[in-house]
Amino acid sequence: MLKVAICGGSGYTGIELLRILYGHTKVRITAVTSEKSAGKKVSDVFQHLHTHEHLTYEPLNKEKLLTKADLFFLALPHGASQEVVHFFFRNGKKVIDLSADYRLYDPQIYKEWYGVPHEFVSTLKKALYGLPEMYRKKIKNAKLVANPGCYPTSALLGLLPAVQNKLIDLSTIVVDSKSGTSGAGRKADLSLSYCEVNEGFKAYALATHRHTPEIEQELSALANVEVTVNFTPHLLPVDRGILTTIYARLLRKTDTAAVLKLYEKKYAGEPFVRVLGEGIYPNVKDVRGTNFCELGIKVNPRTDTLMVVSAIDNLVKGASGQAVHNMNLMAGFEETEGLDTLALFP
Amino acid sequence: MLKVAICGGSGYTGIELLRILYGHTKVRITAVTSEKSAGKKVSDVFQHLHTHEHLTYEPLNKEKLLTKADLFFLALPHGASQEVVHFFFRNGKKVIDLSADYRLYDPQIYKEWYGVPHEFVSTLKKALYGLPEMYRKKIKNAKLVANPGCYPTSALLGLLPAVQNKLIDLSTIVVDSKSGTSGAGRKADLSLSYCEVNEGFKAYALATHRHTPEIEQELSALANVEVTVNFTPHLLPVDRGILTTIYARLLRKTDTAAVLKLYEKKYAGEPFVRVLGEGIYPNVKDVRGTNFCELGIKVNPRTDTLMVVSAIDNLVKGASGQAVHNMNLMAGFEETEGLDTLALFP
Amino acid sequence: MLKVAICGGSGYTGIELLRILYGHTKVRITAVTSEKSAGKKVSDVFQHLHTHEHLTYEPLNKEKLLTKADLFFLALPHGASQEVVHFFFRNGKKVIDLSADYRLYDPQIYKEWYGVPHEFVSTLKKALYGLPEMYRKKIKNAKLVANPGCYPTSALLGLLPAVQNKLIDLSTIVVDSKSGTSGAGRKADLSLSYCEVNEGFKAYALATHRHTPEIEQELSALANVEVTVNFTPHLLPVDRGILTTIYARLLRKTDTAAVLKLYEKKYAGEPFVRVLGEGIYPNVKDVRGTNFCELGIKVNPRTDTLMVVSAIDNLVKGASGQAVHNMNLMAGFEETEGLDTLALFP
Amino acid sequence: MLKVAICGGSGYTGIELLRILYGHTKVRITAVTSEKSAGKKVSDVFQHLHTHEHLTYEPLNKEKLLTKADLFFLALPHGASQEVVHFFFRNGKKVIDLSADYRLYDPQIYKEWYGVPHEFVSTLKKALYGLPEMYRKKIKNAKLVANPGCYPTSALLGLLPAVQNKLIDLSTIVVDSKSGTSGAGRKADLSLSYCEVNEGFKAYALATHRHTPEIEQELSALANVEVTVNFTPHLLPVDRGILTTIYARLLRKTDTAAVLKLYEKKYAGEPFVRVLGEGIYPNVKDVRGTNFCELGIKVNPRTDTLMVVSAIDNLVKGASGQAVHNMNLMAGFEETEGLDTLALFP
Repeated sequence: MLKVAICGGSGYTGIELLRILYGHTKVRITAVTSEKSAGKKVSDVFQHLHTHEHLTYEPLNKEKLLTKADLFFLALPHGASQEVVHFFFRNGKKVIDLSADYRLYDPQIYKEWYGVPHEFVSTLKKALYGLPEMYRKKIKNAKLVANPGCYPTSALLGLLPAVQNKLIDLSTIVVDSKSGTSGAGRKADLSLSYCEVNEGFKAYALATHRHTPEIEQELSALANVEVTVNFTPHLLPVDRGILTTIYARLLRKTDTAAVLKLYEKKYAGEPFVRVLGEGIYPNVKDVRGTNFCELGIKVNPRTDTLMVVSAIDNLVKGASGQAVHNMNLMAGFEETEGLDTLALFP
Repeated sequence: MLKVAICGGSGYTGIELLRILYGHTKVRITAVTSEKSAGKKVSDVFQHLHTHEHLTYEPLNKEKLLTKADLFFLALPHGASQEVVHFFFRNGKKVIDLSADYRLYDPQIYKEWYGVPHEFVSTLKKALYGLPEMYRKKIKNAKLVANPGCYPTSALLGLLPAVQNKLIDLSTIVVDSKSGTSGAGRKADLSLSYCEVNEGFKAYALATHRHTPEIEQELSALANVEVTVNFTPHLLPVDRGILTTIYARLLRKTDTAAVLKLYEKKYAGEPFVRVLGEGIYPNVKDVRGTNFCELGIKVNPRTDTLMVVSAIDNLVKGASGQAVHNMNLMAGFEETEGLDTLALFP
Repeated sequence: MLKVAICGGSGYTGIELLRILYGHTKVRITAVTSEKSAGKKVSDVFQHLHTHEHLTYEPLNKEKLLTKADLFFLALPHGASQEVVHFFFRNGKKVIDLSADYRLYDPQIYKEWYGVPHEFVSTLKKALYGLPEMYRKKIKNAKLVANPGCYPTSALLGLLPAVQNKLIDLSTIVVDSKSGTSGAGRKADLSLSYCEVNEGFKAYALATHRHTPEIEQELSALANVEVTVNFTPHLLPVDRGILTTIYARLLRKTDTAAVLKLYEKKYAGEPFVRVLGEGIYPNVKDVRGTNFCELGIKVNPRTDTLMVVSAIDNLVKGASGQAVHNMNLMAGFEETEGLDTLALFP
Repeated sequence: MLKVAICGGSGYTGIELLRILYGHTKVRITAVTSEKSAGKKVSDVFQHLHTHEHLTYEPLNKEKLLTKADLFFLALPHGASQEVVHFFFRNGKKVIDLSADYRLYDPQIYKEWYGVPHEFVSTLKKALYGLPEMYRKKIKNAKLVANPGCYPTSALLGLLPAVQNKLIDLSTIVVDSKSGTSGAGRKADLSLSYCEVNEGFKAYALATHRHTPEIEQELSALANVEVTVNFTPHLLPVDRGILTTIYARLLRKTDTAAVLKLYEKKYAGEPFVRVLGEGIYPNVKDVRGTNFCELGIKVNPRTDTLMVVSAIDNLVKGASGQAVHNMNLMAGFEETEGLDTLALFP
């Protein structure tokens, strides 16, 4: 049994790790931290986690935790993760960081978008961006994985085959994303309260959202040229799910069937990406609670534009499920271990 | 592997059986019926059931189905189930009927509340009411189990210990239930459309709901005296979940702690009933997607009234999960096989 | 034009007053207070109140406010309202208090349920419980009106005719209420955040909710005997609306039609109470945004129990709309002035 | 008092007309039709329209209706409206058609997108596209107004100033729209049922939605050159509201402040368009139940792209409210008559 610890285990991604790992047969959770809930049983704080009665939240004491586990999931706020990742990594532990702190390879860009400098550049250089569909082989040998952001996961999976096949004009990409409210985290915040969110819908952080450079970094790496994108996030009155609608001008005349073939080929062996048939588009409800990304494709012949719709569960494929997938790869487990479940519908 | 067939596999309870059984290690689904979707793959009709690609809906041809399975789940409309149950049962198959057709032992009462006569009274006599917490031992040897209704499950689990311990005045029982919309079934019906249900809440079928005699039958059996109850169902704007609030006058002075002890004792060994601590009351969100029933208890000292709040997922403990639990008992499997999962929260 | 001020104008009841009074032709809002938003325009804090551009939030400075208005709406937290009410009332102003501070005539009971003593008992003695359907005549001459709580409004309107007509056994009353989330107020609170409330449903404050003595006070006054009730509030995943389901044992054999007649007679002239026909039950969606209370009646002949279902909008009839109704009565305006609108459906 | 009739008065746009006109002081509704509900009182079919007790649904008998009203609102399905519009218009009545039948000036394009020929081309030539912000003057003298579609209203108001000021490359327009479920109409349809829509989100009709040519027609007229757009509708789990996010490449370097000025200038006198300040973006919840369109503007300097977010209530500004606005213009009433209300928030 692999011994794993979860740092930051009382936020939505933390408790999602607890939920998913309950169904994982090769892992034992040996520690879980929370400053606010320190001293309390997990099962007393979260009624739905009643099976975790033996687990008690503890404060994040790095030295104490070090000996308890072989792999650490960090579900800490951005900024707070930097030093903790560095510590566990430098002490020989495997680390999967769910924060954004190790996703951007360029510390300059990190500073620009996150407003703080990166204090551990040498460790940052060792980090790998953990999107299995791009970096599976490297992840298998990685010691430090930066788990991708939720929006970037949905955008990149929708764009990879188009970029790799040089289908689209890279200067025309529009990424219009809509996320369920759990993406904003678990906190007391008036703007996230039920009566403010329910029956509402809005865009936010236009042209300034921090996931923009993450999408651009990976597209640029793929295309071998600097790419910028128009990315707009929206707040959706549902608990879970991201639907991303992508637009890009086609470089050559083609049709939906031909593009579908390219997407199907690219994702043929992927356990968690499903390319839907012509005329079928995904719904976040169909992937809820699962690690699947579903893709719908359409070529608009009137405008020569490629349209891709991508759906994931932001807490699973967009966070904790992908983290478990990364762990499975790093530990040599079956890729689908712990993740082979169906969506809760309705 | 036990071969099972599902008759009526395109309604909400049918697809919930398909979802749950996907995680069951001792069962193989060998047939699934649907008149409307006959000839279509399950995975083409329900995107979230993409793993069931090998299963194709077929029409309900009893003779054809007979050889295909050893146990039949019937998720057919009330009335339609009568004859099908009879056929499979008389041909030596194990049957778990999710309709109401075999729940009421008295055919007269069935006719009164369901408006049609029962045509198979001899078979009806062989049926067992499948609430494991009441009839576990009998279920293990049963061939024909009538799976309890969703509302009765939540009401009975909330009342059993009080009735068995003669705590309450049986003439004063109020059962005020609130159910998620999936309880009304999967159908094109204006009154179930999103804009009619969303942001709404209403009571319906006051003093006339068909689950009333089912609750009364089991309470009467327990108490060995004829019991009537005030039962009011309400339509809740959520997908899943029943919360039932129960009131009954206490026969003797007592307090919450004392009653909690009786409830804890009664449900001590039960794998799917959780009695919450004093001052904690259940939320349907904490049992969503699971087979758990959570109970909160309060004695109101100002009115000498016992109040019990009971929460289940109407599609799981209130239908398909309880059916799988019954199958596990009938087949000698672990009781929790296929049902040992945590709620999807949030 | 009557000059009115609103103290506590940035909570849900405060902004609802601003919304309703925008459509009132005989009133001018001359001041609105908020500590947190002091110095900001109403229209900058609330986008939907863009018409109130001329109004700027100010701190609650009683002396300063005194000269600005003739009637004061107080939408302050319980406890905080005591002294402010006293001040304006003692200085000759008309006051409508939306808090609970002046609803309970007995300061002892107030202290028991609210945990603080009442410091202004002499003023408390001058207060009138402002339920127009009970006290219309007195309200017309009142200077200090305690606006009823949301739950008590729904419960009392459902019970008045039954109690007045001595239909029911007063020792058997069950009041099972379900409220939309706006009833909990506008605040940053994790338990009110979208992902905690959405798709959930729960009971809370069993046998201990502070609206209990308010219901009991008015029923006792009506019946001329001390009445206690079982009252259970629930949190409903909708923005607005309270549905209350009431049960009480009948003292004599009767039927739905006969009881309906009594209810229709009682509420014949009432502009804001609608008794629905036999077999029709209210839905909170049908009263959303309006000052109406809709009532559905059913006699359960199997248990000799009266069942009443009552629906209101908790922010309108349950708070700000009723406050405007009271103002209309106190100022001699048409009762329906400012309140003659239809529900937003869907 | 202007006598008006509503043909198709039991769908969501029909009942929204009934709701809005209840607050209109210069209009009397003299007839309302519905085939399904013919013979029933409006107040018996819709509980929230209890004030319309004197109105009874009648079948659509054109000859009979002709003498009853001076202005006809037609809220009939597409196709069904063609002949009815023609009849009333040719008989000298003023007509406001809420269907799509008279919106596309080119009968060829109508046939292409709606699949049926236009049988009344001579009448079609007399129709005016009723977007007051574009055609106010002409509407004042119009006899036949085609009320704009909901999506086109939100898209056009977001694009008008940019196109008129030649700010954007017309070949790069992306219109990504998200609509509340009432936009799909009031009908028994499984795909619109609560459990299918709730907690879900999806795109539909990619590159093929019928509102595309309507948007293109008006943009082309404005720009005096043929314009095509990428338009994608999405289904939002809310009752009401459309949020449209628009992207277009800028033709010249500019910034948000400068573009805001152009928008503010264009809409300076408009009673129902609000341009929000820099950094503020609209939420559908803030316009719910109102005739307002709120616009947020952002120039993305990294991609030289204009981003506009536009919010309306699909049933008001996107349908019935705009129809009443058009009536006010045609009849010489105050433009805001009947429409001067605030959003129901929360």
